Amino acid sequence: MKDLDFATIDYDRKKRCGVSEVIYGAGKTADQISTIAAELLKNGEKTVLVTRMNEEKAKTVLRDMTALNVAADYDPISEACVIGEYKEASGIGKIAIVTAGTSDQKVAKEAAMTAKAFGNEVIEINDVGVAGLHRLMNRIDEIREASVVIAIAGMEGALASVIGGLVKAPVIAVPTSVGYGANFEGLSALLSMINSCASGVSVVNIDNGFGAAYQASLINHICEQEQ
Amino acid sequence: MKDLDFATIDYDRKKRCGVSEVIYGAGKTADQISTIAAELLKNGEKTVLVTRMNEEKAKTVLRDMTALNVAADYDPISEACVIGEYKEASGIGKIAIVTAGTSDQKVAKEAAMTAKAFGNEVIEINDVGVAGLHRLMNRIDEIREASVVIAIAGMEGALASVIGGLVKAPVIAVPTSVGYGANFEGLSALLSMINSCASGVSVVNIDNGFGAAYQASLINHICEQEQ
Amino acid sequence: MKDLDFATIDYDRKKRCGVSEVIYGAGKTADQISTIAAELLKNGEKTVLVTRMNEEKAKTVLRDMTALNVAADYDPISEACVIGEYKEASGIGKIAIVTAGTSDQKVAKEAAMTAKAFGNEVIEINDVGVAGLHRLMNRIDEIREASVVIAIAGMEGALASVIGGLVKAPVIAVPTSVGYGANFEGLSALLSMINSCASGVSVVNIDNGFGAAYQASLINHICEQEQ
Amino acid sequence: MKDLDFATIDYDRKKRCGVSEVIYGAGKTADQISTIAAELLKNGEKTVLVTRMNEEKAKTVLRDMTALNVAADYDPISEACVIGEYKEASGIGKIAIVTAGTSDQKVAKEAAMTAKAFGNEVIEINDVGVAGLHRLMNRIDEIREASVVIAIAGMEGALASVIGGLVKAPVIAVPTSVGYGANFEGLSALLSMINSCASGVSVVNIDNGFGAAYQASLINHICEQEQ
Amino acid sequence: MKDLDFATIDYDRKKRCGVSEVIYGAGKTADQISTIAAELLKNGEKTVLVTRMNEEKAKTVLRDMTALNVAADYDPISEACVIGEYKEASGIGKIAIVTAGTSDQKVAKEAAMTAKAFGNEVIEINDVGVAGLHRLMNRIDEIREASVVIAIAGMEGALASVIGGLVKAPVIAVPTSVGYGANFEGLSALLSMINSCASGVSVVNIDNGFGAAYQASLINHICEQEQ
Amino acid sequence: MKDLDFATIDYDRKKRCGVSEVIYGAGKTADQISTIAAELLKNGEKTVLVTRMNEEKAKTVLRDMTALNVAADYDPISEACVIGEYKEASGIGKIAIVTAGTSDQKVAKEAAMTAKAFGNEVIEINDVGVAGLHRLMNRIDEIREASVVIAIAGMEGALASVIGGLVKAPVIAVPTSVGYGANFEGLSALLSMINSCASGVSVVNIDNGFGAAYQASLINHICEQEQ
Amino acid sequence: MKDLDFATIDYDRKKRCGVSEVIYGAGKTADQISTIAAELLKNGEKTVLVTRMNEEKAKTVLRDMTALNVAADYDPISEACVIGEYKEASGIGKIAIVTAGTSDQKVAKEAAMTAKAFGNEVIEINDVGVAGLHRLMNRIDEIREASVVIAIAGMEGALASVIGGLVKAPVIAVPTSVGYGANFEGLSALLSMINSCASGVSVVNIDNGFGAAYQASLINHICEQEQ
Amino acid sequence: MKDLDFATIDYDRKKRCGVSEVIYGAGKTADQISTIAAELLKNGEKTVLVTRMNEEKAKTVLRDMTALNVAADYDPISEACVIGEYKEASGIGKIAIVTAGTSDQKVAKEAAMTAKAFGNEVIEINDVGVAGLHRLMNRIDEIREASVVIAIAGMEGALASVIGGLVKAPVIAVPTSVGYGANFEGLSALLSMINSCASGVSVVNIDNGFGAAYQASLINHICEQEQ
Repeated sequence: MKDLDFATIDYDRKKRCGVSEVIYGAGKTADQISTIAAELLKNGEKTVLVTRMNEEKAKTVLRDMTALNVAADYDPISEACVIGEYKEASGIGKIAIVTAGTSDQKVAKEAAMTAKAFGNEVIEINDVGVAGLHRLMNRIDEIREASVVIAIAGMEGALASVIGGLVKAPVIAVPTSVGYGANFEGLSALLSMINSCASGVSVVNIDNGFGAAYQASLINHICEQEQ
Repeated sequence: MKDLDFATIDYDRKKRCGVSEVIYGAGKTADQISTIAAELLKNGEKTVLVTRMNEEKAKTVLRDMTALNVAADYDPISEACVIGEYKEASGIGKIAIVTAGTSDQKVAKEAAMTAKAFGNEVIEINDVGVAGLHRLMNRIDEIREASVVIAIAGMEGALASVIGGLVKAPVIAVPTSVGYGANFEGLSALLSMINSCASGVSVVNIDNGFGAAYQASLINHICEQEQ
Repeated sequence: MKDLDFATIDYDRKKRCGVSEVIYGAGKTADQISTIAAELLKNGEKTVLVTRMNEEKAKTVLRDMTALNVAADYDPISEACVIGEYKEASGIGKIAIVTAGTSDQKVAKEAAMTAKAFGNEVIEINDVGVAGLHRLMNRIDEIREASVVIAIAGMEGALASVIGGLVKAPVIAVPTSVGYGANFEGLSALLSMINSCASGVSVVNIDNGFGAAYQASLINHICEQEQ
Repeated sequence: MKDLDFATIDYDRKKRCGVSEVIYGAGKTADQISTIAAELLKNGEKTVLVTRMNEEKAKTVLRDMTALNVAADYDPISEACVIGEYKEASGIGKIAIVTAGTSDQKVAKEAAMTAKAFGNEVIEINDVGVAGLHRLMNRIDEIREASVVIAIAGMEGALASVIGGLVKAPVIAVPTSVGYGANFEGLSALLSMINSCASGVSVVNIDNGFGAAYQASLINHICEQEQ
Repeated sequence: MKDLDFATIDYDRKKRCGVSEVIYGAGKTADQISTIAAELLKNGEKTVLVTRMNEEKAKTVLRDMTALNVAADYDPISEACVIGEYKEASGIGKIAIVTAGTSDQKVAKEAAMTAKAFGNEVIEINDVGVAGLHRLMNRIDEIREASVVIAIAGMEGALASVIGGLVKAPVIAVPTSVGYGANFEGLSALLSMINSCASGVSVVNIDNGFGAAYQASLINHICEQEQ
Repeated sequence: MKDLDFATIDYDRKKRCGVSEVIYGAGKTADQISTIAAELLKNGEKTVLVTRMNEEKAKTVLRDMTALNVAADYDPISEACVIGEYKEASGIGKIAIVTAGTSDQKVAKEAAMTAKAFGNEVIEINDVGVAGLHRLMNRIDEIREASVVIAIAGMEGALASVIGGLVKAPVIAVPTSVGYGANFEGLSALLSMINSCASGVSVVNIDNGFGAAYQASLINHICEQEQ
Repeated sequence: MKDLDFATIDYDRKKRCGVSEVIYGAGKTADQISTIAAELLKNGEKTVLVTRMNEEKAKTVLRDMTALNVAADYDPISEACVIGEYKEASGIGKIAIVTAGTSDQKVAKEAAMTAKAFGNEVIEINDVGVAGLHRLMNRIDEIREASVVIAIAGMEGALASVIGGLVKAPVIAVPTSVGYGANFEGLSALLSMINSCASGVSVVNIDNGFGAAYQASLINHICEQEQ
Repeated sequence: MKDLDFATIDYDRKKRCGVSEVIYGAGKTADQISTIAAELLKNGEKTVLVTRMNEEKAKTVLRDMTALNVAADYDPISEACVIGEYKEASGIGKIAIVTAGTSDQKVAKEAAMTAKAFGNEVIEINDVGVAGLHRLMNRIDEIREASVVIAIAGMEGALASVIGGLVKAPVIAVPTSVGYGANFEGLSALLSMINSCASGVSVVNIDNGFGAAYQASLINHICEQEQ
């Protein structure tokens, strides 16, 4: 553990939690992000994930990483960045990331970057919201192949319940703030998913693609945990 | 219009709105209900619908109606009562009343009593919530035959969106207070249905089976309106 | 059904739901909108409705449509756009679109564009909120001529209840986010309309002029549905 | 000012606020109510109003007052009680108490008891909710005669806005907890009334018939205040 | 009544409600405001109040009024504007406008402009919030001289209750959106004022200085109403 | 699939979802529960779980099962019942069920009954809320042995975040309605858990011990799923 | 630390937190309460506080304590009980417990029992709500003598702000659920107090008299802490 | 007390409340801030604290103070400013200011500026949120040395409960608006902290670092108060 002026870096996290520290970019400056990333890399970390880093900060951080001769893959849609190398895909099976609509893409990309960074094979299935059920049914066999499913939807969030009733895998639901009017920034989807009539569904915070993929990855690597 | 001490009866309502006054039983005594019903019948009304009348009040009202030699059909599940005669079924087609779960039955029965009282043929389809999608798909052809669909669901209320994407008929959604925890007495289902990603869905108040059937009946008789 | 990279186009929707796919512009780029529209037109669709497309995106899309030699009518107030041709007006009767105040105009225009695109004759009646009841009473005969009424109001949303008690037609209420203070972005009007004391009123999402007109059109063409 | 063990009686209130202390019965025992009432009477007060006193407590209090040879008029519907004598009616004009439905009666009665106790002539007009506008229009001339109007309504509370647009008098709106579903114990009516599009409307707490009548009485006696 | 394209002007309002139409500027263009104002003036109105008109719109409207040779007094703090002449002060007494803090000034100014426009003498007392009670007590005699009191406060809104217990006049409370954190845009002050433990307090919408002054003016001129 | 009058039994659920249908007892009569259970058993099901069945209903159901010569284990604290036989414990490892306080016991027992019914070994660790951190630290090694952790807490629900930072296993958080005041029936714990600063935490509905254990069981048997 | 079946007793709490464990009676049976109390006493604890223990449970617990020859003082209003001996009063000064109304008594008594149990001298001042400010001003000198003030109020909770501006001592505010309508079980008072315009005010949970007194006692004994 | 046009300066506040007036900069212009500060200094005040003054205003105020030859220390992170001199540190002990994450820094700095301005020694401990418990445990001995602890956290706010169970000092919790999704601008942390299962925790408004430090300072100087 190292106590920078502005942050307390947690080097034991990997041992304790199985995954090393992730940098939440929203409340930090580009310099702070680069410093923490460099510290983690110096400490032997191979993969550092940064989330919610806007493009302006990303420019600085990418330049800093280049200076350190470290690879960095930034996705401007999700504003997530993988510094260092992606872990090789392993785990029980694949993680399916399923969205209800085109507008849920930002959250889905954050989930995909996270899942891949942590060594998971990902299937991305977009725009299969329940108002056009056949679109979902056309892809359901692919979804059934996954060992964990992440269901991402805004508005009424019904996707989680419908998928929950169609697959054996655990479903992690991500409500998104997509919509307008009485969706109240994602509250309608959150309540809907928390009240899901399907069993086997649990929920993470609104727009929290990272959190869903993090837990999906834990589950997908659960057998390794036991060794 | 007649001004009883406690109520102002609206005899012109039928001419104005196409349907005569309905008695909301919850805030009235049995005596008040009987008096209003008798006034409406005396004024030439053939069918008087009473909603939300508990069994204790119903006993008194049924006895009063028997004394007046008037038929009265009380349904203890929905606490609705049709005094006088059911209108003969007419209209463009049938009204499908579809519920997500067994526990939505009370609301469904109120809708069915209302729809029948106002002269509609009714199809009742129960327990086809989206967590077991094939149950819904097994009945979807029946639902598609209806000219108006009433979708009744608690919890996350996803049924309305799924049906909305499968039929041509207008869908009237009724959120129910069924569920527990973060459903907040039906709020989750209400928000879910109001945010439905399917077009062609509109929503009435929580547990308002009467209101849904009332509007469904207006729609089902819309061609008569024009004559 | 065609699977673009970012969207899954639903060509069967017309057969299934009676109306072809509508493009919700808010979460899409101008290019995505143009691509989907072009796909739908290529597939035989005559009328493509785009909603919530801001003026900047509209410029690009209009230019793209001109290049394809396709007409496109964009309304900057509602940010709705009809690509291709308006369907010829048909249906049981007219759809009345009634607003409480001048500020509800944006929502009313979206409803009007939608209703006309789908082949309905529209009556627009503005600024007849209940605080000046005689303004409403002066126009009530026109409203009564409609087969479906769309009541649009912000603030306390009382318009829906008052109209609901004056007409035989089904009323679809649209709460708007117009107002300030304790209207909480339209929540007060939504709750007010959902709790309407008038029967025959159902509600769509806040500011959802499109949704109201879509359902009104379904109802207005309900007899065709049966053929 | 006298400091009983459980309460601090405020004898100067009349001089300071123009009206003597009112006893809120809900949080007090029958004995406490009787003791405070007796203290106020002993101190020269002619009229003591008790609100929210249930029938069980009322029995004891009425018996206590009889023992003191003091008149007491208890209304079981509103659970209000006037101990001593009603003030003689005075003031600028009448107070109109208008309700939307039969179920708002409890609140209306509390308002009427209060207004009469404080020396106001009262007009009671019931069951004229906006879903049957002609019922209201039939009585509007009576309402226009009042110098202050109290508008009482549950559900969507539209009555206040409609009356606000029809009269010159100030309107005090009382939302009631009447209704079900998304009325959330009166919240929908409260928000509706606070957002009234009519000017000249102010609002008191849900079910607070007393508070509305208290302020109406202040207004009705406003000229005396100046003397 | 005149039906402009975008608005329905209500010339009878003065006869019906005692006050002529007020123009709510927020949802209208400068041109619409000028047109409505000109129409009202042409129709014989001497005083036209415009509220919520930002400075940009005001420039145009003031120029338009100059062109019509009509006076116009615009207050940039409250964004209110009196077109034509202020009514001469009359009524039973004065209206006291009392604020808790400097930041409530915008709302207080809107109230003052409104009260003056409608012919009331105004006392303005600022920054006497309850956290420094002696500031309020130093001014209480002035406040007691008023026939109506408008109490304006954000944060916890306690000012209304404290004043309510100190004066005989009716108190109209205006919650403001001033504050941060858990004030939720004025909700805390609104709830606080609606729950006031002082009798004689009623409440208008958050930040609605106009509404409070409008009703205060009605009350202050209540004796004229009777003539 | 069999269509009883009141319910549509879903025999394929096991094949589709890996677990057979569970009977939610709250909205059903004892007779309905017995009938559905008997149908499932007749169809070859070995283990039938019933949740939320109060003691009165349980008496009847237990008697009915005895008559059928079927074992039934009812737990009056959680009101859960296992009809038939518990599945033999299998899966990757153990499920730890951890509660913050004695009052969370009801929910914990529902989770334990569910996990055992579906073939999982369970560790129960009670009353280790974060206000006495050492109580938790004393048991943390046991918790770390589990392959999935269920964290159950009311009030501020901090337990989930603290455990989330201490273990490698996925954590499923269950907010409970335990507490008073501003916990709003579990809402505070729900929001707290959804906003958990620890990664690897997902959430189910308030008091939903069943749902948490169901998903934990899916995860614990995830390797079998792949075979 | 001792691990009973249902609870984990925390003997070190006194050393760690300065105060020994308190038993929250609401979620426990009488037997559990007696067992925990006996364990604590056996372990050398002199004073055991039990809160929220209803009269029925109290009977059993008092009988059990008598059997153990231990004193127990139960207060039926607050449902608090001090088992063993009250600590002798010490600390910097007195704790003033001030209520707005008679109905806040239950919470005030819980605070008083707690403060006395933990060795504080208490001043109780009741029924001095801000609607009758002189009642508060008559007692303010007594309040100013205290080293810590607990301000207890329901409805709009203004008492905390007013006292906060009148004293040098820290003020701990307790919102109560007293009131009706839009107080939403104490939410209005909670928001009001959290938004207090007076500095030096902090807030505990609704109705949490215990929590306020606990912290007041910590503050009152803060100098001992240092020794 | 001096009545500027826009503000009523409260010179007696120091005598009455022990601390002189603090200037809340958010609702005031730079000129108003400078004027009030100058007045207070002229009146003999040595230390004037200004909070929530953005950098633009600060430039003007700092220039004005330089012109008056008065020191002014502005912190751009917290937007707080100490004009004049910091009081010399005194009091019972130190105030510990503890944050959960880097993003809570703004609030922590406001607290630190306030505590130092009022004469307290401060320990700042950052980024020790409960998801990495060992970070907190590494610093707990430092925290235990403080006489008062301020716990600052967003998201689920668990830090307050955990610290509350580990220290003898009173804990003042500050919820922050840090987070996203269902944190609703700090509401989740506020509810979490208000429902804290740890005793000895009270709460101030969201992001109110000033209020927490103000009360902490009162407590830290409580013995002086008695002299």
